[in-house]
Amino acid sequence: MTAIAPAPLRPLVMVDWGTSSLRAAFAREKTVLETRHSDQGILKVPAGGFPQVLQTLCGDWLNEPDALCLISGMAGSAQGWALAPYCPCPAGQTELAAHLHWIEPQRIALVPGLRCEHPHAPDVMRGEEVQILGVLQLQGLRDAQLVLPGTHSKWVWVRAGRIEHFSTFMTGELYAVMRQHSILGRTLPTMTNDEPWDEAYFDQGVLLSLQGGSVLHHLFGVRTLALMERATPLALASYLSGLVIGEEVRGQDLRADRPVWVVGSSALQTRYARALALRGVQTHRLGDTATWTGLLSLATPLRHHTP
Amino acid sequence: MTAIAPAPLRPLVMVDWGTSSLRAAFAREKTVLETRHSDQGILKVPAGGFPQVLQTLCGDWLNEPDALCLISGMAGSAQGWALAPYCPCPAGQTELAAHLHWIEPQRIALVPGLRCEHPHAPDVMRGEEVQILGVLQLQGLRDAQLVLPGTHSKWVWVRAGRIEHFSTFMTGELYAVMRQHSILGRTLPTMTNDEPWDEAYFDQGVLLSLQGGSVLHHLFGVRTLALMERATPLALASYLSGLVIGEEVRGQDLRADRPVWVVGSSALQTRYARALALRGVQTHRLGDTATWTGLLSLATPLRHHTP
Repeated sequence: MTAIAPAPLRPLVMVDWGTSSLRAAFAREKTVLETRHSDQGILKVPAGGFPQVLQTLCGDWLNEPDALCLISGMAGSAQGWALAPYCPCPAGQTELAAHLHWIEPQRIALVPGLRCEHPHAPDVMRGEEVQILGVLQLQGLRDAQLVLPGTHSKWVWVRAGRIEHFSTFMTGELYAVMRQHSILGRTLPTMTNDEPWDEAYFDQGVLLSLQGGSVLHHLFGVRTLALMERATPLALASYLSGLVIGEEVRGQDLRADRPVWVVGSSALQTRYARALALRGVQTHRLGDTATWTGLLSLATPLRHHTP
Repeated sequence: MTAIAPAPLRPLVMVDWGTSSLRAAFAREKTVLETRHSDQGILKVPAGGFPQVLQTLCGDWLNEPDALCLISGMAGSAQGWALAPYCPCPAGQTELAAHLHWIEPQRIALVPGLRCEHPHAPDVMRGEEVQILGVLQLQGLRDAQLVLPGTHSKWVWVRAGRIEHFSTFMTGELYAVMRQHSILGRTLPTMTNDEPWDEAYFDQGVLLSLQGGSVLHHLFGVRTLALMERATPLALASYLSGLVIGEEVRGQDLRADRPVWVVGSSALQTRYARALALRGVQTHRLGDTATWTGLLSLATPLRHHTP
């Protein structure tokens, strides 16, 4: 008897298509061979223009015989290529795969976002679900609590390998609009991406918010501390960041013996890990590079060649 | 013996000089005879231009023999006519009068704002202190809890006729910047001054915030309820208003047997009275017209003619 070699998997084109940019990757078997980037986020693509943008960026990959293409992120929103209805939670790989929205049958699909229900309102994510799948895969996790900090931070509860529930916090956006459009901005430096971080003032902000009270009041302290010249503008930018991240962390159901996975950019990881430490909670830190792993894992059952 | 008639009081020019506009009033004895308005708020007046603006609006009044002029509001800030250093709390009429900042000795003075200390940061007000004095005078109050809702809401504790302590909440400004500059704005109507109010949705927002949790999360519900088309844009504008006012009210030290004085515009009075009722607290409502009473009361000891 001769052993039969497993059939090779279909070539895979993966696209993470966000609001302001997109990135794409090409994989043979389980290996990512190349990645590309474009600034054609969904807000810049005219209606009907999505196939052309994809063709321009990834045409050679898509022309590979029997290539499969999965697209995650805001491309599946109402303002995107097509509306991929949200997959309800709990959801893992199986549920997401079952809810793929096919643009071309068996060839190009949009990964749906997730939704869950809170008593007062629904909650949604689009794109993060793939990143979370990747983290679970990379770390071999079945049960975990994660936070993906950012403009709209996501707190995620994973049980038995599925995303059971999640909750969104508008922390990053509130920080940015208060800093750029409220009176607080008048005494703070202009926002930059590589602003130095004043850890002592960040800690003060976090600790104040963790004590409770209302962030609506605490925010005004950023103004008065500047008026009274009790802190430098740069220190107060860190203090403001601490206030809002502290307010986000305050509301979480956390336990000292249950570490939180912090998934995001290095700067945000540092701040969230610090804020969680101030609440007595340990963290594991991960970069936001799990997207390709998540898409690979989601695609695998679909990559056996059609007969 | 003949009774000596009390000497007449000096004519009084009162100015409430805010950021975007100013209003002025002229009083003989205890009677306001005339009021005027100008759009020359402090942000529109060039450095050194304040005397001219005052002369243009109130020159005839100032020319009355022995006229006295008191100016309250942002004209006493660093960006105003001159910096009138904050008067520390506790402060009533006596303390404020002792801290007047004289532009022309015994003739034109800036009313100082107030400051108090919280453990984490100072708090300040400028202009509201005069309005509060007026309310105390008009209502014959010695001990009271007041709220002056607005861009920066002030919660004020009065004891034995003096402002003992106060606390500022950035509620109005946070509402405006989230509505005008965050993603929430995309599914809300453009802000107008006479927007209809959906009381049922306002109540829902208040009740959710009163339950606790974090406003950073609740805010995202304004987005998802719109995405899922579970409420109209106008209803969601009221819901957002309820969320932030509810968050402000949640944090207060309130008692069912201690009514709160709500001092402000009619629309805000209605919303705050409703939010406080939902927390089981009664309110007394007052328009924001106590400024002249406050300035009259502050000026009285200074209005006896100089010999």
